[in-house]
Parts: sequence; C-alpha cells; structure tokens
Amino acid sequence: MAEQSLFKLKDGWNLEIPEIDENQIVNYGSNLLCGNGYLAYRGTLEEWGKDQYKACIVSDTYDMADGKWRELSNAPDGLYSRISIDGQDFAHDPGSLDLKTELNFNYRYGIFERQTQSNREERNYQILSARFASYDNLHLIANQYTVSGTEKAEVLKFKIGIDGDVWDLNGTHLKNFSSDYDSEKNILYIKAETVEEEIEVVTALSFKINSQLQNIAVEEKEKAIFLIIEVNNPDQKEIRIERNLIIYSSNDRKDPLKQALEDAENCLEFSYEELLKKHKAKWDQRWERADIKLKGNLMDQLAVRFNLYHNIIATPTHSEYLPIGARGLSCQAYQGAAFWDQEIFNLPMFMYTDLESAKNILKYRYHTLDGAREKAADLGYDGAFYAWISGKSGKELCPSFFFKDVISGRKIRNHFNDWQIHVSPDISYSIWKYYLAADDIDFISKYGAEILFEIARFIHSRVHFNSYKDQYELIRLLGPDEYHENVDNNAFSNYQSQFALKIALYFYFKLQNEKPQELKKIVDKIDLKENEITAWQEIKEKIYLPKPDSESKLIEQFDGYFDLEDTTAEVLEDRLIDKSEYWGWPNGVAVFTQVIKQADVIQLFTLHDLFSEDVIAANYDYYEKRTQHGSSLSPSQYAIVAARLGRSEEAYRYFKKSAYIDLKSSNKAVSGGTFIGGVHTAAAGGIWQVLINGFAGMKLKKEGLFFKPNLTEEWEELEWKLIYKQAKLKLKLTQSEFEVNSDKANAKEIEFKVFNKKYNIEPGEKIKISL
Amino acid sequence: MAEQSLFKLKDGWNLEIPEIDENQIVNYGSNLLCGNGYLAYRGTLEEWGKDQYKACIVSDTYDMADGKWRELSNAPDGLYSRISIDGQDFAHDPGSLDLKTELNFNYRYGIFERQTQSNREERNYQILSARFASYDNLHLIANQYTVSGTEKAEVLKFKIGIDGDVWDLNGTHLKNFSSDYDSEKNILYIKAETVEEEIEVVTALSFKINSQLQNIAVEEKEKAIFLIIEVNNPDQKEIRIERNLIIYSSNDRKDPLKQALEDAENCLEFSYEELLKKHKAKWDQRWERADIKLKGNLMDQLAVRFNLYHNIIATPTHSEYLPIGARGLSCQAYQGAAFWDQEIFNLPMFMYTDLESAKNILKYRYHTLDGAREKAADLGYDGAFYAWISGKSGKELCPSFFFKDVISGRKIRNHFNDWQIHVSPDISYSIWKYYLAADDIDFISKYGAEILFEIARFIHSRVHFNSYKDQYELIRLLGPDEYHENVDNNAFSNYQSQFALKIALYFYFKLQNEKPQELKKIVDKIDLKENEITAWQEIKEKIYLPKPDSESKLIEQFDGYFDLEDTTAEVLEDRLIDKSEYWGWPNGVAVFTQVIKQADVIQLFTLHDLFSEDVIAANYDYYEKRTQHGSSLSPSQYAIVAARLGRSEEAYRYFKKSAYIDLKSSNKAVSGGTFIGGVHTAAAGGIWQVLINGFAGMKLKKEGLFFKPNLTEEWEELEWKLIYKQAKLKLKLTQSEFEVNSDKANAKEIEFKVFNKKYNIEPGEKIKISL
Ligand SMILES: [Ca+2]
Ligand SMILES: [Ca+2]
Repeated sequence: MAEQSLFKLKDGWNLEIPEIDENQIVNYGSNLLCGNGYLAYRGTLEEWGKDQYKACIVSDTYDMADGKWRELSNAPDGLYSRISIDGQDFAHDPGSLDLKTELNFNYRYGIFERQTQSNREERNYQILSARFASYDNLHLIANQYTVSGTEKAEVLKFKIGIDGDVWDLNGTHLKNFSSDYDSEKNILYIKAETVEEEIEVVTALSFKINSQLQNIAVEEKEKAIFLIIEVNNPDQKEIRIERNLIIYSSNDRKDPLKQALEDAENCLEFSYEELLKKHKAKWDQRWERADIKLKGNLMDQLAVRFNLYHNIIATPTHSEYLPIGARGLSCQAYQGAAFWDQEIFNLPMFMYTDLESAKNILKYRYHTLDGAREKAADLGYDGAFYAWISGKSGKELCPSFFFKDVISGRKIRNHFNDWQIHVSPDISYSIWKYYLAADDIDFISKYGAEILFEIARFIHSRVHFNSYKDQYELIRLLGPDEYHENVDNNAFSNYQSQFALKIALYFYFKLQNEKPQELKKIVDKIDLKENEITAWQEIKEKIYLPKPDSESKLIEQFDGYFDLEDTTAEVLEDRLIDKSEYWGWPNGVAVFTQVIKQADVIQLFTLHDLFSEDVIAANYDYYEKRTQHGSSLSPSQYAIVAARLGRSEEAYRYFKKSAYIDLKSSNKAVSGGTFIGGVHTAAAGGIWQVLINGFAGMKLKKEGLFFKPNLTEEWEELEWKLIYKQAKLKLKLTQSEFEVNSDKANAKEIEFKVFNKKYNIEPGEKIKISL
Repeated sequence: MAEQSLFKLKDGWNLEIPEIDENQIVNYGSNLLCGNGYLAYRGTLEEWGKDQYKACIVSDTYDMADGKWRELSNAPDGLYSRISIDGQDFAHDPGSLDLKTELNFNYRYGIFERQTQSNREERNYQILSARFASYDNLHLIANQYTVSGTEKAEVLKFKIGIDGDVWDLNGTHLKNFSSDYDSEKNILYIKAETVEEEIEVVTALSFKINSQLQNIAVEEKEKAIFLIIEVNNPDQKEIRIERNLIIYSSNDRKDPLKQALEDAENCLEFSYEELLKKHKAKWDQRWERADIKLKGNLMDQLAVRFNLYHNIIATPTHSEYLPIGARGLSCQAYQGAAFWDQEIFNLPMFMYTDLESAKNILKYRYHTLDGAREKAADLGYDGAFYAWISGKSGKELCPSFFFKDVISGRKIRNHFNDWQIHVSPDISYSIWKYYLAADDIDFISKYGAEILFEIARFIHSRVHFNSYKDQYELIRLLGPDEYHENVDNNAFSNYQSQFALKIALYFYFKLQNEKPQELKKIVDKIDLKENEITAWQEIKEKIYLPKPDSESKLIEQFDGYFDLEDTTAEVLEDRLIDKSEYWGWPNGVAVFTQVIKQADVIQLFTLHDLFSEDVIAANYDYYEKRTQHGSSLSPSQYAIVAARLGRSEEAYRYFKKSAYIDLKSSNKAVSGGTFIGGVHTAAAGGIWQVLINGFAGMKLKKEGLFFKPNLTEEWEELEWKLIYKQAKLKLKLTQSEFEVNSDKANAKEIEFKVFNKKYNIEPGEKIKISL
C-alpha cells in the first residue's frame, strides 16, 4: 500500500513522515492541518510561501474577488520565518538537497511538528518547530520555533513577521493593508480588508525569544511587515522563538485590531507549554465522547482518528451561523461553503457525541432560511430551497456556469444550483434524525418546524401533478449522481421529498396537539394556510416513488435510466478526448450511459429502512458495477450498505477507499494548474457512519435504536460512545460479543434492539450480548 | 441583385440561364427540378452523374441504409446519355471549355430544356434536350434528346441506358440489381431492391430514334445497363431520341416490373409532343385555380410561380398516404419526410385552391395516427404525439443524436423528436382551418375528429399541473425556435396546445349534437371516456398562457427568456469557434442568449387573431432584432406580420428574403461536403401566405373571412383565386381597389369582410371596393 512509503506509524494518534516527499507538499498542507473550526493553518513549513500552498483560512470571511466565486479569505501568514546563519540561508526550500525534514502530526491535539537538519556535517544545525491552532482560544495559533546546533555560528539572522502576499484560488481577497510593530510589547500586526465585502482581517503576532537581541530591524512592505532579528555569538544550545499568532475579523469583533492586540499581549503571559496545556484539556473533553477505539489494525485506527479529527476541525462548533465547508477550512476550494454533505455526512457524528454542536449545525439552516426563501422565490417557487453551495447568508453561491468544456474552452451551464433540489429535504431528514436521537422537541418548536414547513412548501411548489397518471412528479432534477442532469423522478430526490412532507406533517400535528401556541407562532410568522397542509398530505400520498421491479428488484435511478447505454467507467475512460474533461452535462462521456458518479439509489438504503435485504442486494450488485466513485461521498455509502448486507470484504474495501482518500492522497489535488484538493470532510464524516451505521449496523428509527453488528474480520474490537435520548452509552463490539454500558449518571432506562431482540439498559448497567 | 447575373427573364413563366455557371450546378439540380409529387428528376444534364448531384427521387421508397437516417431512395438514372462523334466525346462535363450550354425552365409545365453547342467552329454540333415529369402519368419522365449539326460527321455513337450507380446522401439504398434489354420492343430496364425494406424499384426505358441504326451493343454491369447505338453516315439534319423513363416500386404495384414495361411500351405509341400535350392539359387545370398573377415586377411574378410550382410538385396530391417532404422530392435531405411545415406552410395553398389535395394532406395524418400513438406510448404519453420527422408510417424518423459537435467530434443529443411537441397541436390547428375553409363536417367525422381527440389526449398526458400556481404547464419543450431546447411554457406551444383542446372539445360537442352516431363510433373505437372530456376542459381553462406584459406589451417566448443575454446574431457570429458549429443545444453560441433561430412568438400572430396591433407591433420590433432567420420558415412569417402591420417596405423585404431563398441560392447547398440543399418547400408554401394572408390581409376565423389589404407599393396588381365554402372566387387587388368575383356556378351567396365592413356576394356577382 502506498501509505507505507509515505508515513510511519508510532501509535494510533501520531503520523510520522520521515522525510518530505516534494510531490506530496500539496497533500501535507491539508492532511497535516492545524484547525479548530474557526481557522485552520495548512501543514507547511514556516519558510514556505504560497507556491507551497501555504494558507491560513479563516471562517466567516466570505468574499468575491473574481466576480464568480465567493470563497473564504486566507489571512496573512504570521508564521513566516527565514533564518540565515553566518550569512547563509538555512531553509528547507523545495528542491534543496542539503536538508532533511521529518514531519509529525498528532491527531489527538492537532499538533504539527517539523524537525529539519542539515545533511552536511559542517552545518549541523536543526530547526524544530511545533504548532497548534488553539482549541482554547480559537483565534490563536501558537508556535514554538527552535534553532539548535548553532553554537559555533557567529551571526544568526531571523526574518519573522506577517506576510500578506497569500495564496488565493480565485482572485486576491485582501486590500488596503496597514501594519505596525510595537517594539516594547513585541507585537506586530497587519490589518487588511477584503476586496468585496470589506471585512477587516487582522493578523497580530506576539513573540518571545530566549536570547539577547543584538538588533531588530523592521521591514514594512505594501502587504507585509517583517522583523530582522540578529543574534550575535549565540553560544546557546538553542534559540527559541515562541509566537502567538492571533486572527480576528470584523465579523468577530467590532474592533478586531484592538481584540487581536489584546489577545496577543495576553498570550505573552503564558509559555507555549502553558498554552498547549489549556488547548489539550479542551481536546481531551472532545475526544472523551468522540473517539472510536479500534483494535486489530493500527493504521486503520490512525485513519479513523484522522477522519474524526478532520470532521471536528472542519466544523464551526463555536457558532450557529456558519456552515461546514466541503473542504472544511483546509483551503478555499468549494468556497468554504456547505453542501448537502453538511447534514448527511458531517452531522451524524455530532448528533450522537455532541448535541450542542449538532444543534449549531442545524441552527445554521434556521439562520439561513431567508437565503433559501430568496432562492426559491428567485426561481419561482415557494418556501425554502436551500442553496447548493451555502455560505454565511444562505444565498446561493453556486455559479450557474460551473465547469468549463476543456475541448472548446466554452463555459458549461451546470445546474447544481437550480435542479439539485434534494438538499432541502435532506435537511428535513436530518432534523428528524436529530429529533429522534436527542428527543428534543424544543428544538423542533423553536427552529426545526419552521425549516420543515418552509421545505414542505418548497416541495409543494416544485412538484407537478400528472393528472393522466394521477401522480405528483418531480421534473428536471439532478440527483446525488451529478453526471445525469435534467432527469425526472430521481428516486433519491422523490423519496427524500416525500419523507420531508411526512416529517413536516408529523410535527405540524404533534405541535398542534402538544404545543399549540408555539405552532400558532410559527403559522402566523410564515402565514401558513390550512390548505397548504391539505396539499402536503395529498402530495405525500400521490408523489411517484420508483418501486423495485417485481422481478429484477431494481429501483430505477430516474425515469429512463435503464434505457441508457449500459457500460462501465473503464470503457468511458477510453472515450475521453481530454483526460480532464467533465464526464457529465451537457455532453460528457457519462451522460448517455448508466455510469454514475456516486451512490444515488444506494444512498437511499443508508438513510431509510424501506426495502427488503434482497432488494438492497440486487440494487447494490447492479449499481456498484456502474459507479465511478467520482465523488468522495460515494465509497462510505457503499461501505455501509455492504456491511449491512454482511459483505465483510466489500465493506472493508470501501471503508479503506473512503478512510484513506486524503491520507493516501489518491485523488489529485492539483489538476491542470487548478487546485481541487483539500480535505474531503464528507468522507471524514462518512467514516463515523461506516463504523457505527455500517459495521455496528446501527439504525435509528421512530420505533427505536437498532443494532445489527457486522464487524469486519480485519478488526478485533471497536469501542465507541453515543449520546442517545440524552443518555450516555459506551459500546464495544468484538467478533463474538456486543457490549453496551449505560453511564450511571443517566436519568433513565434506555431501550434498544440487537438483531431485533429488545434490550432495556438501566443507568450504570452493562449488557453483554453474544453474537 | 445576384439573380440578374444568374438568369434571364423572358416572361413570368420561363427562367433562362444563358450559360451554365459550374458553381451553381448543385442549385440548378433543385431549382430546375421536373416533378409531379410522385417523383422528381433533378435539373442536371443527361451526361452528368452523381458528382453533379443528379438524382431521381421517388416517393414512398423510405429505406435506411446507414442505421440512422431513413430517407427516400433515388431511382437508377434512365436518362443517362453520352455521345461520341467520330470517336470524340461530345459532352458538357464540368470543367470543359469547349461547350456552351443554355438552360431554360418553364414553371408552368415543369419543362427542363438544355441547348448545348460547341465553341469551336469545326465541331458545330448541338444537343437540344427537353424533359418533363408527366403530370398525366406520374410514373413517366419523357425526354426528347436531339443532336444536330452532325451532317458532316461519319460515326455517331450514343451510349444511353440506365445507370444504377446513383447519388445517395446516407448510404447506398439499392441492391440486387437485375436488368434486361428487349431488342424487339426497344425497352430496357433495371430492377433493384432497397437494402433495408427490400422495396423493389424498377426503372424501365423505352425509346425511339429517328434514324437507321447501324448497330446496337448491350453493355450490362452490376448496377447498370447501357446500349451503344451506332449511327453511320448520318447525313441527317438531326438525330432525335425520344425516351420514356418509367418508374414503379413495389409500394405502387405488386409487380412493378410488369407495370413499368407495360407503361414503357404504351408510351411508344405516342410521340413526345403527344405526351407533352396530355401533360400540359393537366397542368392547365392545376394553374386554373392555383396561379397568382402579379403585375409590376416580372421577376417577382416569376419568383412567385417558382414557389407555387415547387409547393405543388413537392406534394403527393395523388396519395393520401404520403407526406410532403421538407425538401420535397428535390433530394434526400430531410429524409423526404414531413415536418410541421406540411400543415403550417405547405397546406394553406391547397386548402383554398384544391380541396381534394388538401384533404389528402390531412388524411395522411389520419393514416399515420398509429405511428403517432406509438411515439406517444414509447415516451410514456397517451394519444397521438406526431413524429417530428414523419415518413409513410408516421413513426418517428428523427434520430436522437441529430447534430454533431464539430469541435469535439462528439454527437449531440438534440431533442427535436421528444420535446418539440407543437407538431401535434399544429395539425389540430390545420384541421380547424380546413374545416372553416371547406365547410366540410364529413371530413371531421370521418377523419378529423379522431385525430383531434387523440391529440387532445396527448396534451392531457403531456401537461403538468402546478397546484402552487393553480395552472397547467408544459415543461421541457422545444418551440419553433430550435436554439432553445429544454424550455418551459413556450408561448407558441402553450397557445397551440390550448387551441387544440378547444377544437377537440368544439367538435366533440358538435358531433354529439349533430352526428351522435358518428361520434359514438369514434368514442368506441378509441375508448374515449367522459372524464377525459372533463380533463380537457379543465386544462383548456387553466393552461398557462404567457400574456403580453402590461407595460412593454411583450410576450415572453418561454419562462426566463427575458433573463437571457440580450445580444444579436452578428455578435454571436464572432463567438463561433468553428463556422459550421450548431448554434443551439447543448452549448452553442445562442443557447444562453435571446438570439432565436426563427419566428416563434411572431408566428403566433400569423396563426391567431388574439392580440391587439400594438402588442403585435411591440413584439415584432423586439423579436425581429433577435431573429437570426437560421430557418427558411422564418422570413415568410415576418413578411406576413409586417404586411398586416402596414409596414410595406419591411414586408416586401421579407417577401424577397423568402421568395428568393432558392432562386438566389442564398443558402449554402453543400457545407463541409454534406449536402444540405434542395428546395425549401416550406418557404415555397409560405409565399402563398405572404401574398394572400400578408399583402391581401386575409384571415379565416370562425366568424368568417376577413380581408385587410396592404399591397406593397412595389406591385400594381395581384390576382388570385380561392375556393371558400365550396364557392369559387376570383380576387384582384390593386393599390386603389379590391375586386371580388363570385363564379356564376357557385351554389350560394358568400359573406366576407373587408376592413371589417361586411359584404355579401351572389353567384356571378362582382364587388369592387375602393381602398
Ligand atoms: Ca505602519
Ligand atoms: Ca439481364
């Protein structure tokens, strides 16, 4: 396996890269990312710059620089460092043969470490640097930067500071730079503002150095401020700089500069180690509930934690107003914006391990209702049609002309924005799941119901009644499989839409009975009419749902899918004129074939419990052959379904495909000069589901919590925690036994079923079930 | 003007081409076509072959040779001739400098004449040849072929016969050739069969020669039979061959060979002149009602007759089972098949000048109902969805992948077949007009009603109800403007569909009252249910019809049209990567702009009388700027609307654009090696409408016949005939007067309105109205 040559394992938390492989620089940046949901700093060396995809992406800084892509901004780089020793640069620039650098990343605490030493005996210097994005103060990146082996050197020059000439995907986002250095406090800063929204972004830097300073010169440029620090006759064993990089934007504070300088100054009261301690304490709390222990394969254990870590740091759990980016904060790709991935892939882990964060994720959809209403109205619909690419406002960020025809150079009108409607019912689905998991009717009455009603409204306005067939239909869709635009009655979208209507009606009547005043408030607010409820009921009854064929058991992905050319992704590869061309709309190689980009019908099975096992198996066998997995969302869904079908080898194969997408860097991060990389956060979130919903076979339904374990033979044991109906559970699964522990502080008995046998567990009780 | 250099005018019937322009050979073939609705022989010299686009297209011989295009077959060429005089070829082959050829075509009788003579004094030979496709025996092409000036020559060798190596657009259609020569009767033939349908096609040739024959040798080849005829020491003033070319297929007769030989033999009893006389008599009958006399511009007079002639010979008036090809029988382009052109462009002239032919044209749609039903069912609809490209069976001949992306070489999935639904309601519309013009309820009860009901059914199954907007919609359409596929609520299609429902309902209730038994027969036959009638009524009431904006008066061509980029065809020209690329679906230069291929909203105004003049004017001004006229259907519609708006100059300009499309050969006939030429029969039919519906301002409505003359100042007088409610009328329009004559044999008084003033004309009466 490729990963063995790329990294070494010490334990289930640390990834060691013995030597930098320059071809992997772009992937290190994402995989070794320090982040905390507010910001993230890419895993790059301090001496590198934008050519090495160095970046510090900051949440809540959406800005459009090129007239097309609204994306997060990248803050000026406050960890910039160059050293010269006796007049000679000491830096691991790409292409340099002199130095050897080892990297280590700790996924428990998100600590990036680099250790660089010269290959040449006469220059036996070392750089040792460690950094973390604080989980205690989300605006802080702390760095300890040590140079050693320089005892015999005469003059060391450090150039540190803040560099505003940053990497940007789509246009330069920062303008109007100002900077200053306070030599008494040892604090410097850069203030800039974004080009479109004029959001102020401040990067402040405070530092300490364990050495007598000979001289400090300030170098101010248009977009940068640097200090040239000279240390003469060091004689010291090591020279250590401790840096506190503080970032605030005007979306965080009215006066971000003041706050940044305050924080920077405060940090100087603590050593790096002290800051780290506070940081670790927060992570320990997080892992207490989030960790999944896996025995039997250390690499898989690390990979699981890699994915959990990335799902966590991608998520702005501190805020209820921000989305989870499809690449988290690992880069600007996918605009730092939410897709349906947020609810369907990232959310479940939080739903069972951190209810507050889960609520924040869902509240984000509440706060962006107006954006979704605006989108619906713009397209002539009612209610809430959530953005395909959703930033802070919830307005549609997806440009109409998305891809480019690489053969003609002409832009392509993709309809991800207008036709991919399942994003709205997917949100309804997740609200339902949250409700079942958290038993939280208050959330529904305060936030959920309004979302659900507006989505039901949208569906009402989006369906068409076919009086000839006496059925409601969804016309002109794009399902999860994006290679087939402009289809009718996409099974996934139709089932999800019906489900969204069911849930809206369920809570309408539940609130009518149990919280009539809260319902009235919502009804008045959104002017909901009785005849709308009647319409939802009728549509729910009469919406067309593609059923499994009585003989083949197959569910057609959309009207006419089975009439398309039946071929495989391999055959289509050969039809490409240009390797980089888009396979889908309007005339790509997959359009007129049954080759699909990703799980579509299959994903219905991971979300719902509607079909018998033989139907699921038949569809799995059919669609699996035709799936290209051109989306990182796909393998986890196949893994879950394979696990549930008891196809252990298949499930494990798809687990690996999903878990190692980033670690193995199997997807190209740069294509034709365009950066398409970054962390696949949906795959990260998907891994939690593969383990819990797949191998542990957990299903949450209105009727209760169900387990049907199918642990892969590759592993000996899986141990995880759940919060279910506010009760804390610890679960352990081996090849022969399934153990459930109920925390003794739990308030009540919890019921669950294993292989359809009912169990009730009291607080403090442990139940062991032989498999 | 270009035409002046290309041809000379003798009178209003004859077109003279003083000298062959080799660049025009492909256009001569179409423009100088001898035809009779059963077959047509292209205007080529006898010595030419397939490289000069020589062809004799025969109706009712649909066959598919290439797996994609079903098209008419081209019969073996029985006029093949080569002469050698004293061992030297005497032939006007392209590139030859020796000979000069003058062409003459007579549009009254469809007579093609060529006169060739040597440029060199020492070889002062001449070929004089005349031919016509008999209007008396539709299977006959008669040719008189004369060589003169050869008195001093010693040996003349004629090579005549039948050459089966013919020009084909899409694959070779003939196989299994057999041939024979009967030397006693002087009859030879070739029999072949089409490759797919195995239709037998027989070409027989009988001939006379006014000379002693020295020797006749037979040369039989795989696909040809030739006679080498030697005439020694001619001494004659001229040697004349009179040939009768007879064509039958097994779709005409069980034993086409027997019939062809019989006809060929019969013809020998008549001289060329005698055959011509019978032929002319039939044409005289035809022109008696069809001719339009125009004073004031001889060229325009000829152009009008050119168009009337081509509309007539394109139409298989002899049959009720055959379509009018979009290029008539002038070539295989457009598959010899009917489009909506047939009813909307070709039919009106017949509807007012030849009721039997008009009925045959409409009966064709009755006989192809099963094809339309099959298409509807295949696509999941009910009733009759007529083929976009309709051959004999009415099955859809339009291939799904129609155009090619010339940049990538990849085929394009155009949806002319599946989404261009207006063809069905267009047929309903024409049945209504025929009914109004002919007052023929019997046709409705025998043929029309069943068509109308099945089309209403189709519309019922094709619309979708939007309960949110409380309206029926037509989703995913292609309107007349083919550059915009996949649009919703195309104004033209929606209005036409509503109209089709209205007419179906009108006749349902009319027959219920007046012919209940006939209605019952149809209801039983097609199993029509009461609730379908209710559904049609509801859809008729609630179908969405884009209304003129209250301020701008504009009608939106389809949902969202006004949001598209507002530019012009000239700007788009500059965006072409390849001059030959398709402008439309999926990614052509016009797709995301308001530039349209042809009249769309504007055509609504020529068909219906729904809008006030200011609405029509506003829309004319708006859409005219944005119309590329990429279709030959477009200019005639603009001409009619301009004439009705009293915009005389504009109307005349569009009249010329339409009338001279073929005469001026302004459209390329060959593009990138592909033949796209032939006679634009819809433009030919459109000219009748420009004169009568445009300049004479005739409108036929349920309320009666209306005239609102707007004669262009370019002309002095227009004289034409009409059959209206079985009465024969003769009409004359000058700048100052409108005269109507009612034939004294008419049975009853006829009412009409001129500028909304009512007139009643008795049989034999003449009414003069000062303008
Ligand atoms: Ca400054
Ligand atoms: Ca023979």
